[in-house]
Amino acid sequence: MYTHQNSAILLIHCHDHKGIVVSVTEFIHKNNGNILYLDQHVDHKENEFFMRVQWDLTGFAIPTEKISDYFSTLVGERYNMNYDLYFADKPQRLAIFISHLPHCVYDILSRVSSQEWNVEIPLIISNHEKLRHVAEEFNIPFYHIPITKDNKIEQEQNILSLLAEHKIDLVILARYMQILSESFTQSFPHQVINIHHSFLPAFPGAKPYHSAYERGVKLIGATSHYVTPELDGGPIITQGVTDVTHKDTVENMKRKGFDLEKIVLSKAIWSHIQRKTLIYNNKTIVFE
Amino acid sequence: MYTHQNSAILLIHCHDHKGIVVSVTEFIHKNNGNILYLDQHVDHKENEFFMRVQWDLTGFAIPTEKISDYFSTLVGERYNMNYDLYFADKPQRLAIFISHLPHCVYDILSRVSSQEWNVEIPLIISNHEKLRHVAEEFNIPFYHIPITKDNKIEQEQNILSLLAEHKIDLVILARYMQILSESFTQSFPHQVINIHHSFLPAFPGAKPYHSAYERGVKLIGATSHYVTPELDGGPIITQGVTDVTHKDTVENMKRKGFDLEKIVLSKAIWSHIQRKTLIYNNKTIVFE
Amino acid sequence: MYTHQNSAILLIHCHDHKGIVVSVTEFIHKNNGNILYLDQHVDHKENEFFMRVQWDLTGFAIPTEKISDYFSTLVGERYNMNYDLYFADKPQRLAIFISHLPHCVYDILSRVSSQEWNVEIPLIISNHEKLRHVAEEFNIPFYHIPITKDNKIEQEQNILSLLAEHKIDLVILARYMQILSESFTQSFPHQVINIHHSFLPAFPGAKPYHSAYERGVKLIGATSHYVTPELDGGPIITQGVTDVTHKDTVENMKRKGFDLEKIVLSKAIWSHIQRKTLIYNNKTIVFE
Amino acid sequence: MYTHQNSAILLIHCHDHKGIVVSVTEFIHKNNGNILYLDQHVDHKENEFFMRVQWDLTGFAIPTEKISDYFSTLVGERYNMNYDLYFADKPQRLAIFISHLPHCVYDILSRVSSQEWNVEIPLIISNHEKLRHVAEEFNIPFYHIPITKDNKIEQEQNILSLLAEHKIDLVILARYMQILSESFTQSFPHQVINIHHSFLPAFPGAKPYHSAYERGVKLIGATSHYVTPELDGGPIITQGVTDVTHKDTVENMKRKGFDLEKIVLSKAIWSHIQRKTLIYNNKTIVFE
Repeated sequence: MYTHQNSAILLIHCHDHKGIVVSVTEFIHKNNGNILYLDQHVDHKENEFFMRVQWDLTGFAIPTEKISDYFSTLVGERYNMNYDLYFADKPQRLAIFISHLPHCVYDILSRVSSQEWNVEIPLIISNHEKLRHVAEEFNIPFYHIPITKDNKIEQEQNILSLLAEHKIDLVILARYMQILSESFTQSFPHQVINIHHSFLPAFPGAKPYHSAYERGVKLIGATSHYVTPELDGGPIITQGVTDVTHKDTVENMKRKGFDLEKIVLSKAIWSHIQRKTLIYNNKTIVFE
Repeated sequence: MYTHQNSAILLIHCHDHKGIVVSVTEFIHKNNGNILYLDQHVDHKENEFFMRVQWDLTGFAIPTEKISDYFSTLVGERYNMNYDLYFADKPQRLAIFISHLPHCVYDILSRVSSQEWNVEIPLIISNHEKLRHVAEEFNIPFYHIPITKDNKIEQEQNILSLLAEHKIDLVILARYMQILSESFTQSFPHQVINIHHSFLPAFPGAKPYHSAYERGVKLIGATSHYVTPELDGGPIITQGVTDVTHKDTVENMKRKGFDLEKIVLSKAIWSHIQRKTLIYNNKTIVFE
Repeated sequence: MYTHQNSAILLIHCHDHKGIVVSVTEFIHKNNGNILYLDQHVDHKENEFFMRVQWDLTGFAIPTEKISDYFSTLVGERYNMNYDLYFADKPQRLAIFISHLPHCVYDILSRVSSQEWNVEIPLIISNHEKLRHVAEEFNIPFYHIPITKDNKIEQEQNILSLLAEHKIDLVILARYMQILSESFTQSFPHQVINIHHSFLPAFPGAKPYHSAYERGVKLIGATSHYVTPELDGGPIITQGVTDVTHKDTVENMKRKGFDLEKIVLSKAIWSHIQRKTLIYNNKTIVFE
Repeated sequence: MYTHQNSAILLIHCHDHKGIVVSVTEFIHKNNGNILYLDQHVDHKENEFFMRVQWDLTGFAIPTEKISDYFSTLVGERYNMNYDLYFADKPQRLAIFISHLPHCVYDILSRVSSQEWNVEIPLIISNHEKLRHVAEEFNIPFYHIPITKDNKIEQEQNILSLLAEHKIDLVILARYMQILSESFTQSFPHQVINIHHSFLPAFPGAKPYHSAYERGVKLIGATSHYVTPELDGGPIITQGVTDVTHKDTVENMKRKGFDLEKIVLSKAIWSHIQRKTLIYNNKTIVFE
């Protein structure tokens, strides 16, 4: 499903100036790169500039390992840019954190198994034994790391060691029912994606379907976001909703919500692994 | 667009018991009524029963003016029912309250002018002069009733007099930018419908699009609800959402939101005027 | 997820007459059954009546095995009804037919494994070897039954034998890339559900995403339907769509469509296994 | 609602080459223009390049009336471009064609009256008298031009004269129940937008809601498209759908469809008047 593997992706963020697009595209053009996708966004209110450009590396004049250096010297420094350079053919390495509910992890694993996504999943971590069978069905190492108030700091250290050991690029909280500590989330800035089962900012925290039922809303939602120290307060990547009626019990809402959660989470992951997301001011730019 | 005009509608609410559906349908059947629509809902958690039944009055054995009395004696009292009896051919009388923004009132008036709805609009009330031209375009009396902190109680009394004089059944707040007093809303229980420009309970109160922009949500919404003394806290009738992206400024969100608001409000009005809404526990049952 | 297991479900279809609802509900009420759900639909144009009623069997006066007989004598014959009686606690037995694409079968199996659905899957049948691993991951017997022009009749007989042997109630074509013969579909009337990857009646037959791309539509869809001898012409159960833009290649449409297909198919299966579907005039009644 | 009025818009289409984005942005940059929006699309399959760029004219070095000439010489000819230059502050002039149904024209007129759109509507044309009152409510000249088999050619000439006289940029068929002749549509290439009441290519031609009802679809749609000689076969701009169930009669589908039609049509008009649409191969590129 993934094409143009031999291509480079630049994600750029800086203050807006005249001439940035020219400079970036010229850099690629003069070095014989063919632009495959170019998306840019100017936040006119904040005067900030964001860009994603992907180009074919076939015949590109600058060797792969020197592109970042050259770009920095020739373009980046001039505009005081923040930028990241990625190569589309390199699979990202994901760790999945789960607890009791399997619908999201099943959705993710079936996409990986189908080669819909170009990622590797070296491990699944859970604070419960219950879903070990899911990991085993897909032949992925499963780590049971139960967390209590008393062992939380220690266990998070163990988790961080595992993530480092397995060179994890991205952590997915697939209905993981533990709140990560501030120090944990700061160790993985913008690299932890959560799915919350409400249309945030409505119903943050625990038991959002119960709250939705009590309030009598006519739609329920799901929100995937980058995790920050503020609970359910990080930059939103994707949201979805579905209709409910007076007939829907809390149980029904959960059942309907499962479908929403798994699709919304997988869309967010897909945006991230294509390197189409940028973060600014606790909000996301998600290029299409 | 409205059919079966010579028909009766019963909206029923009581504790759930075995035999209610039999009793109600038997009452209609034995008196030679043909059921056109029957919807019922049991809230198993609260053990409450809700029903809407509409039947053709052609050849019905009980005279129209005595149906309520007979039903009460033969069925209602047995189950300690709350019920309302309506006749589908009687047009309801709506008052529209507006301020600066015309999209919702235009949507309503164009439906009435097109005979999409069987309602009468004897008056439009506004706290500003700005939209007088809209009322005039559709030849509807326009009352400019400006409200300040000091004259609020007095002006609400004037409004209530107008509503009484014009025999108003239902008040529509079509982006009316005034908070009605508790005594006003209690004079019209479940007869005032508001449109709020967010997916409640997210972003109640003022400037929800600004708040949505600040939070970086990926969908914006609109909610129509019955007005209660609690601001934006009444029973929700209809909700809708539409996608937004990082490209959408507050102005864009407003523009996208206008389409949502008018359609969501009109759907709620349509449900109400068909007598398809019931209220319980600050929530609605909305039959389809 | 499935509740009220000790309950009976009646699906009823007959010409519309006054008194049917009374007769059915009275039958349940007099025998001490408590109605859990009652849905009815009258097709006023065709004068046809449809009903689904589910009631708690706790304390029901008629023994389970005699309900159908009693109902027939006391109610069914009077109105010349077609009806089916089901018991909610009995799991249905599904066979899944697949070919190359795993997204739908993964979605189904993960729901079964999660106990989201009360069904049994005794076997998976495929005309290719490719997805054997999926069946193995979930420990379900996999039958590779390749079909060619020459062996089609014979192989379909083999399949029918397997279905009979395993007492299959429902066949799911989860992107099965073979057209079943007329005699096959007639052996399983209204018991074969297919997912077609377009919003039918647009783009029936092969390669609908290519056709959608060529036509330049702005939304793509998926349709689940009961299979009849007419290709992609059977009664529609569920449909869904998702937006596409000029940026979406055929490959992108397929990727977006996968999410739609699996959700739409699973919704249709869920309606069917809850016994909420009726068929008339090549159309479905799908109760909520 | 419309901002950056003192700005220029270039819509560009040519074969894809390396360096186009550089050349275009350099042209703007070197002449002191600040890019407000830049969208580009490459159809890699057809090797075609499309771009929309909008820049602030404040302080732009080239006088407004010479921009096209300079651009052609300095950039356009080099790449053999098709391009159009527009100025965002110039209101476009629309003619609305209607017949019996007022929902779309009401939606358009209320947007214009609300200054949601920066357009002028010098005239409304209808083949019936029925909706004259709508034009009068909004104080717009109404021309009743009835069309029969015998007078069609002559009446279309009269219409074309009116359009020329009023310097019309865009014709909106707002449920106009006449098929325009090939010669008419060719006189206004890509300047006539129609709303068709189905999700094309399903149900082209007359009575799509009847066909949708007969087929038993679970969603109905609306499609706005540029008009070409092929009936309902022109490039699609926008599509929308809404759910229907077995309960929906043809009348209900029409009522639900009205809301869809007016919103879908207005979205298409909004895209066009912002100069965000390009046409290629009977398909549209619609920038966001």
